Amino acid sequence: MINGEMQLNAPIRWAMVGGGRSSQIGYIHRSAALRDSSFQLVAGAFDIDAEAGRQFGIRLGVAADRCYPDYKAMFEAEARRADGIRAVSVATPNGTHFEICKAALLAGLHVVCEKPLCFTTAEANALLALARQARKIVGVTYGYAGHQLIEQARQMIARGDLGEVRIVNMQFAHGFHSAAAEADNPSAKWRVDPKIAGPSYVLGDIGTHPLYLSEVMLPDLKIESLLCTRQSFIQSRAPLEDNAFTIMKYTSGAIGYVWSCAVNAGSMHGQKIRVIGSRASLEWWDERPNQLSYEVQGQPAQILERGMGYLHARAIEDDRIGAGHPEGLFEAWSNLYYRYALAIDATDRGDAQALREIRYPDIHAGIDGVRWVENCVRSADNGGIWVKYT
Amino acid sequence: MINGEMQLNAPIRWAMVGGGRSSQIGYIHRSAALRDSSFQLVAGAFDIDAEAGRQFGIRLGVAADRCYPDYKAMFEAEARRADGIRAVSVATPNGTHFEICKAALLAGLHVVCEKPLCFTTAEANALLALARQARKIVGVTYGYAGHQLIEQARQMIARGDLGEVRIVNMQFAHGFHSAAAEADNPSAKWRVDPKIAGPSYVLGDIGTHPLYLSEVMLPDLKIESLLCTRQSFIQSRAPLEDNAFTIMKYTSGAIGYVWSCAVNAGSMHGQKIRVIGSRASLEWWDERPNQLSYEVQGQPAQILERGMGYLHARAIEDDRIGAGHPEGLFEAWSNLYYRYALAIDATDRGDAQALREIRYPDIHAGIDGVRWVENCVRSADNGGIWVKYT
Amino acid sequence: MINGEMQLNAPIRWAMVGGGRSSQIGYIHRSAALRDSSFQLVAGAFDIDAEAGRQFGIRLGVAADRCYPDYKAMFEAEARRADGIRAVSVATPNGTHFEICKAALLAGLHVVCEKPLCFTTAEANALLALARQARKIVGVTYGYAGHQLIEQARQMIARGDLGEVRIVNMQFAHGFHSAAAEADNPSAKWRVDPKIAGPSYVLGDIGTHPLYLSEVMLPDLKIESLLCTRQSFIQSRAPLEDNAFTIMKYTSGAIGYVWSCAVNAGSMHGQKIRVIGSRASLEWWDERPNQLSYEVQGQPAQILERGMGYLHARAIEDDRIGAGHPEGLFEAWSNLYYRYALAIDATDRGDAQALREIRYPDIHAGIDGVRWVENCVRSADNGGIWVKYT
Amino acid sequence: MINGEMQLNAPIRWAMVGGGRSSQIGYIHRSAALRDSSFQLVAGAFDIDAEAGRQFGIRLGVAADRCYPDYKAMFEAEARRADGIRAVSVATPNGTHFEICKAALLAGLHVVCEKPLCFTTAEANALLALARQARKIVGVTYGYAGHQLIEQARQMIARGDLGEVRIVNMQFAHGFHSAAAEADNPSAKWRVDPKIAGPSYVLGDIGTHPLYLSEVMLPDLKIESLLCTRQSFIQSRAPLEDNAFTIMKYTSGAIGYVWSCAVNAGSMHGQKIRVIGSRASLEWWDERPNQLSYEVQGQPAQILERGMGYLHARAIEDDRIGAGHPEGLFEAWSNLYYRYALAIDATDRGDAQALREIRYPDIHAGIDGVRWVENCVRSADNGGIWVKYT
Repeated sequence: MINGEMQLNAPIRWAMVGGGRSSQIGYIHRSAALRDSSFQLVAGAFDIDAEAGRQFGIRLGVAADRCYPDYKAMFEAEARRADGIRAVSVATPNGTHFEICKAALLAGLHVVCEKPLCFTTAEANALLALARQARKIVGVTYGYAGHQLIEQARQMIARGDLGEVRIVNMQFAHGFHSAAAEADNPSAKWRVDPKIAGPSYVLGDIGTHPLYLSEVMLPDLKIESLLCTRQSFIQSRAPLEDNAFTIMKYTSGAIGYVWSCAVNAGSMHGQKIRVIGSRASLEWWDERPNQLSYEVQGQPAQILERGMGYLHARAIEDDRIGAGHPEGLFEAWSNLYYRYALAIDATDRGDAQALREIRYPDIHAGIDGVRWVENCVRSADNGGIWVKYT
Repeated sequence: MINGEMQLNAPIRWAMVGGGRSSQIGYIHRSAALRDSSFQLVAGAFDIDAEAGRQFGIRLGVAADRCYPDYKAMFEAEARRADGIRAVSVATPNGTHFEICKAALLAGLHVVCEKPLCFTTAEANALLALARQARKIVGVTYGYAGHQLIEQARQMIARGDLGEVRIVNMQFAHGFHSAAAEADNPSAKWRVDPKIAGPSYVLGDIGTHPLYLSEVMLPDLKIESLLCTRQSFIQSRAPLEDNAFTIMKYTSGAIGYVWSCAVNAGSMHGQKIRVIGSRASLEWWDERPNQLSYEVQGQPAQILERGMGYLHARAIEDDRIGAGHPEGLFEAWSNLYYRYALAIDATDRGDAQALREIRYPDIHAGIDGVRWVENCVRSADNGGIWVKYT
Repeated sequence: MINGEMQLNAPIRWAMVGGGRSSQIGYIHRSAALRDSSFQLVAGAFDIDAEAGRQFGIRLGVAADRCYPDYKAMFEAEARRADGIRAVSVATPNGTHFEICKAALLAGLHVVCEKPLCFTTAEANALLALARQARKIVGVTYGYAGHQLIEQARQMIARGDLGEVRIVNMQFAHGFHSAAAEADNPSAKWRVDPKIAGPSYVLGDIGTHPLYLSEVMLPDLKIESLLCTRQSFIQSRAPLEDNAFTIMKYTSGAIGYVWSCAVNAGSMHGQKIRVIGSRASLEWWDERPNQLSYEVQGQPAQILERGMGYLHARAIEDDRIGAGHPEGLFEAWSNLYYRYALAIDATDRGDAQALREIRYPDIHAGIDGVRWVENCVRSADNGGIWVKYT
Repeated sequence: MINGEMQLNAPIRWAMVGGGRSSQIGYIHRSAALRDSSFQLVAGAFDIDAEAGRQFGIRLGVAADRCYPDYKAMFEAEARRADGIRAVSVATPNGTHFEICKAALLAGLHVVCEKPLCFTTAEANALLALARQARKIVGVTYGYAGHQLIEQARQMIARGDLGEVRIVNMQFAHGFHSAAAEADNPSAKWRVDPKIAGPSYVLGDIGTHPLYLSEVMLPDLKIESLLCTRQSFIQSRAPLEDNAFTIMKYTSGAIGYVWSCAVNAGSMHGQKIRVIGSRASLEWWDERPNQLSYEVQGQPAQILERGMGYLHARAIEDDRIGAGHPEGLFEAWSNLYYRYALAIDATDRGDAQALREIRYPDIHAGIDGVRWVENCVRSADNGGIWVKYT
């Protein structure tokens, strides 16, 4: 049970790039990082409009002279301070992630980055090399993975509660972009501009979320080949898709599906993952994150609830409040940032043993997402054919 | 509102082939046909074991001398009676449907047949030709289509409540065959024997159900091409599949998915159809058939309930009890048999006008199912490739 | 598993009083009685308008000369026939139940009567005496009790799955009479006329339904005292109530609540029963009758599904179709009529042993409902005070 | 949309009494208060064990010399500092609330107190007098009231969406105390000791929560009389109840029910409120706080979702993340603390106009809860009779 006690000797001095006044994602980064004294926000380049960023930073309690016009200025100036930042979170449009993460690693900073980490596996591998060299962590905010019942699912699958896994059925299918809202909304427009958004829209923007959940729950599953078909129902979005369907064959013989969709009219989120085994299935839905359905064939379906004593010990340790009380997405993110802090601390202390036991969406998670999108796009753009997973 | 009054001048004299003592499907045929005095059960060849069939027929109130050892004997003997049967329902294993339907049509009988109607489109077209020649109807028991809210969905889509249809997401994914139950259960074994079951297992056995619902709701949608991948997680079932995924491209540019599965451990039925338009979506689930979810993007989701005054007039006319009271699958089937009776009557009276207005799963529905399975298998057996829909 | 085979040597010759063309309740009586050849509809006095009743009866297949102008004529004429009726169902307005049931018993008929059986316990006891003297059964159509999961609940409670029962929370709270619909609808008007409807509206009309479910599930529970408060939110309904709340103290120390309401705007049915024990609770909702929630404190909640092999044998025997397929209210009624038939047969054969094992809502159930309403009204009309249960 | 910007010129210097290391409630107070820079935790008397409290305070980042052995020492020492605390939150066992709140007000501090505020209306009125004299606010943490959809319900009712309100049906009925867990758990034991817990257990501990929600939604409703019956199913809890039922008559003619229960085996929280009007009903459930059911009689039920543009402006302003993402109890509390901060600020600035527009559970909410429990206990202890609400 988390109670707000500092886990480190001192909070990690931390900055943000992006995440300005109107950014929801910026707020959830800050809420999560600052919640339990693991991080301290001491600097930032919050906005592409330097003055707006400065004003905003001050309202967040950052000293005026540590509100920077851009990330380059920040990394340079902070590097010169004895009390300079040790970690930075990147919450900017997709097209800038690679260069900012690269600069941050070169500046000797730990990095937390929004997904997608970058646009190509080549870039991703370059970041991996840099991170290894710098001995820094790169965290990627697959925020849903912080929900405790994802850990419960992982543990149940690991101990064989499902039998042999046969099918993984995933979807993230909301309806908020059923109309061409981006036409009038500059802050949404970049999502469908390949230069800024990258090679895909819904595959990378939302499909990678349940994909990562499957990686957490099923660490041994390896994709052998996949097939993807994608559509742009709002034609102005082409070549970027607002709907896609991906079928994956795993090396184990299991099969997976991912439905990625932003035009599922009337659906709120529609992020679900169902893992089907020879004996039983598990299903989780991000809009009801405190419940996990466990369905053994031939027995009554069971609804597991967050916080209950019957859960695996690892699925309880991050609880912040008793069972029955709903936790939400902010708690999931807080759990991730809590682990980022532990990982940063262990890395800086050179404690490889501790590091191995901290599970969080790291640079490999980032690479996996980029790689999956790359394979999906390759399949889709060749007519929706089966491609060997590379 | 249906109240049990006879709709025809006299019940249609009717027989069954198959549907013996231990057959659930036989019971639902009889319950539906006999419910409202549209049919009268006067003969039968209920069991491959002639004596067992005779004993059972007597317990159903059939005269002993009209309990026949097989369908051939029945068709022959009944044809000689002034009060002979006018219609027959076929509830035998798949592999016999074609020959029995053919014989029935040749004997001048109206036919109601379990799906699949037969194994190939060639056979299906042969039956169509025979039916036209004999001026008889062939009904196919896609029983779920009899639920009133399916008609509601059809009417709402027709009047534009969804906008332009983009995606049709279908599944019938239960878990009852997660283990190789058929190994010890002869009455289940035939389902995975290609000689008896036909070229597919779950595609034909369950996938065609939501497919037909989509045809009812979206009569203008035409498949242009499709891709199917299928698996036999219980290996002894190969080449018949216990899981399959089909993606369809419609000529309109819309896209459809069908997940057919019998190893979805812990799932009861899992038959759902979600039709997604540019403005709104509709979703229906066969385990809660009295509710229809209508979700306009940007508005609160609405739950429509069977029997309510706000529904389309055509979706209310088959109600048997007030809203709030759950109707179930038996009512859906009763609605179908009610329409079969009206169609038989209109056909025999030569009333083409009346016939056109009676909507029921007819021989074209049967052909469509066979055709779809044929295309799916062709795709799957060629490596899960896109095939032109033929 | 019920498959439609006749259970008796011959169907019971049966008639209806009431249940004419526009009567839903008449249709469900007929659907249930005639479903599996246990009863045969041979006579009727279907309508207070004799000619309308005759026309309707003919459309149901009843011989014209056995469509009678009223119940008196019917009982008299049928008594003179060798093939006269043996049983009659009463589906007329409440105020006529007593006299018709009395006449039927005096005419030597088995009776199935809509609830309330009558208006006072004095009347009810008079019927009991008559029934004993005539050696006939009186069935009361608490139709929901026919759902198989009610039997499952009964068995689970009996074997101690809940521990000691502490609380029974019941409600039947729909919204269909939120406005004074009866003002313009003669067929609804009688329900709020004390002369025809009796001493209560929602208490007797709907509150007795979950009350009877509690009697089935908890046969040993005895009410010691109760308190009731009732309101007429539509003032023209006074003194009859459209909302009532009843608290009951059982002799065991357990406590019960019943919320009876017809002005619960927007609610479809809202009939629920939750039985809470020291170890676990059970909850059932009539709009989802195929599911039963079983919640052991400290364990994941379980959803039991009709038709599954893990249920008690007695909860499976009335299934008509496999698990997953929804059964509805018609099946529940069919189950009751099936038991009425068995009880009539056992009574006529003088088989007391068989009779003891047939569980159905009999005259005691009818008496219990009348008695409960009487006690509730006595409490409510004295200011909502505690009254000793008499 | 809240984004973490400071709303005040500077955070309010703040302390806690109670809420030590193992206290969940302490953590939620801190999480909520510290989230958006409205408060700064600078002092505390966190534990009855002074040294434990000191150690814990240090881990929270409080200076060692401002970790006090008890509240008296803290109020005294802080009063002497120029940078002393301005506000204090009280999260101690019930029996100490009155004295600590009194001391805090006398020390010139704003107070946020756990419910119940105290044990008697006499005490509550004494605190009210003190607060008025000191010109300080007293906030009471009815945390659920901070959920945005409660505000939505309030606004919908105010504008007449339900018609005339007839019935308010409330419950908070969990199962966590189905067994006598307190026997072995000292930290739970005080809840059933009248000296520490006060005159009631579930009425005050949980029943007052939905009661307060009804006050927020229905500010004009006044209780005229009530009736309460309570039970101690775990006998060692007597005279304190673990189950209670309260019926309330409002002066408007409406009626209300509250079911308060801690032995509802298997129920997680079971806190629900349903407001029923002549036209429509609203229903909210604390385990799914992002949804609100709106059911107009004769129309499809609607599910309103937090964060959507169709909601009332006042129900959106506290959102922290987009619709679809689940917010949880922590956000609700954060919303309350945000308003406490605004109210403290407005009070200190003497801005009566601003103060009037800030809606939060204040001392009147605290008094109302105490008063309701007092009336319930008076009714229950006199045999469950109707008592005039005093």
